[in-house]
Amino acid sequence: MTLPAHSRFDAGALRSFAEQMFLRAGMPADKARDVADILVEGDLLGHDTHGLQLLPVYLEEIAQGRMTLDGGPEVLNDHGVVLAWEGRRLPGPWLMLRAIEEASARARRLGTGIVSVRHSHHIAALATYARRVAEDGLVLVLMSSAPGTSSVAPFGGTRGVFSPSPIGVGIPTGGEPVMVDVSTSITTMGLTGRLAREGARLPGAWVIDEQGVPTDDPAVVTPPRKGALLPLGGTDVGHKGYGLGLMVEALTAGLAGQGRSDPGPRWGATIYLQVIDPQAFSGTAAFEQQMDWIARQCESNPPADPARPVRLPGRRGLALRREQLGHGVSLPASVVKSVGEWAAKLGVPMPEPLSGGS
Amino acid sequence: MTLPAHSRFDAGALRSFAEQMFLRAGMPADKARDVADILVEGDLLGHDTHGLQLLPVYLEEIAQGRMTLDGGPEVLNDHGVVLAWEGRRLPGPWLMLRAIEEASARARRLGTGIVSVRHSHHIAALATYARRVAEDGLVLVLMSSAPGTSSVAPFGGTRGVFSPSPIGVGIPTGGEPVMVDVSTSITTMGLTGRLAREGARLPGAWVIDEQGVPTDDPAVVTPPRKGALLPLGGTDVGHKGYGLGLMVEALTAGLAGQGRSDPGPRWGATIYLQVIDPQAFSGTAAFEQQMDWIARQCESNPPADPARPVRLPGRRGLALRREQLGHGVSLPASVVKSVGEWAAKLGVPMPEPLSGGS
Repeated sequence: MTLPAHSRFDAGALRSFAEQMFLRAGMPADKARDVADILVEGDLLGHDTHGLQLLPVYLEEIAQGRMTLDGGPEVLNDHGVVLAWEGRRLPGPWLMLRAIEEASARARRLGTGIVSVRHSHHIAALATYARRVAEDGLVLVLMSSAPGTSSVAPFGGTRGVFSPSPIGVGIPTGGEPVMVDVSTSITTMGLTGRLAREGARLPGAWVIDEQGVPTDDPAVVTPPRKGALLPLGGTDVGHKGYGLGLMVEALTAGLAGQGRSDPGPRWGATIYLQVIDPQAFSGTAAFEQQMDWIARQCESNPPADPARPVRLPGRRGLALRREQLGHGVSLPASVVKSVGEWAAKLGVPMPEPLSGGS
Repeated sequence: MTLPAHSRFDAGALRSFAEQMFLRAGMPADKARDVADILVEGDLLGHDTHGLQLLPVYLEEIAQGRMTLDGGPEVLNDHGVVLAWEGRRLPGPWLMLRAIEEASARARRLGTGIVSVRHSHHIAALATYARRVAEDGLVLVLMSSAPGTSSVAPFGGTRGVFSPSPIGVGIPTGGEPVMVDVSTSITTMGLTGRLAREGARLPGAWVIDEQGVPTDDPAVVTPPRKGALLPLGGTDVGHKGYGLGLMVEALTAGLAGQGRSDPGPRWGATIYLQVIDPQAFSGTAAFEQQMDWIARQCESNPPADPARPVRLPGRRGLALRREQLGHGVSLPASVVKSVGEWAAKLGVPMPEPLSGGS
């Protein structure tokens, strides 16, 4: 008997299951609920590398004592719109949801709110936060850098300095939100690692070898090889991705006062989270009018390939979320297997797959 | 007798000259001084398409009644850290310097300050503002969109919707500031127009024709042709530039409540200007420590081409500024000629070129 490549599970059942797993691993109830919620939401939105695939990884971090379970962040500064936290390696999704509450309250009162977090643990899928904030009628700008990761070279250089350092944006509209999630490098080690294992090539010369020669061979950035990812813009206009990477570095590590210059190669993130209330500027109605007009111009744009209409970022994820809330969340067999091993270890029953999995 | 390709002029003399020109055109004294200052600074930093080359263009805008000279911006909202202005098509550089004063004062008091401006006139070189703010020890994030320009297609589309919509960032360090200025498209109409006139090609397939076919031929985006510029990331990963373009659109046109959905094809900008004080987070010393470490990692990075060491954005401009403050500002003959025609028209004597111009 072979397992199907994907199985579908009820979203609520997955959430309860993941919550039980974190509780069993010693995580307090509020954190277990939030982390489970954000991981399942990652799968719902189709970010399957940032969904329940992370459950075993987070559990291993807990087992190794590398994720803090108790207490809250330490307040380093609380000043006007600004809140600066020492995250104490608390679970990233829980920290982000608390940061969103704080930043949103400040935004409603003062126009914007910013939470800076040093030593957050991994924060999973940025789009999950963008959706929540935008559905509240607020704008989210979220940047993250990983001080322990040096995979992206500066433009013209050959050694990795930066992490892919994503920028996540949540934009409310009169309809569904727009959710942007882009790295400041062309690609990430997730993709290069997978393609290298498969012996496959990248779609273009997105990486460089140790001498700085551009190539589509992902093996050059797979240890023990020490090539680097190219910044967004590549060998042509990579000064742009490099510049954006420096911006993320300044707003994350700079403002948090913690980053690459500090010892400790552990997995984690330094965060800049800003919420903006359009009502404090020209009003929510005027904001949505502008964004709805842009949305129509994009969605009605004649596509270069008739089979691929122009989409707004995040809309495919939201459609997938609706479909999967109705018909079950699709998990790859590899995720079912690795999660199942931890479920057996912790004595938590796995949810039953829905019938009709494919 | 042929004119030299470039002539050098004393920076102070150019500033006084440009100021006199604006005064003669009817601009009040404070605005004439600031606009002259920012244009000459553009040339000092080497942004010669955004320096005194703009002087005749601005004077023509004044002559045509398309730039407002008197009074200040109308306050639409003044709320916490937020200031929202109706810019009344006032001179962009003057508006930006006033916005920086306002945003910096709020940042010192509350951690950050944001000024949103609708209907600004053109704002010249973003790097000029980044330098000033960063040298005050503050971080600048400046985004600009041009509602009258629709040159950049959304990813997968064929019709221009966006302007190149630059992001400017000023980052203080323990030494000289880092100044980022990147468009969210691969290239701009300035470059494509020049290359099309010269019958030359772009360095890569940076534009698409009317059917969405990628090409290096700049003629396809030169009127009457109606091709489009590709977003940063191009045909491979242009969803990233597209996403960043949407972010700029939300923070500029969305918050300002004015943009592409409004009538009026006139030249101008919608602005998002944010100043952040690192002191309100983890302190300026901690901020600079992180940025200095990154700066060293970049500048000491073994270059792919030994003849081209890795540079920090803005550092070449600052070196050029020092050199040109000492030895004169180099202006192309075409700029000397077009500025000279306006000088004759307004009866303002042109400064004498310094000897040794080449």
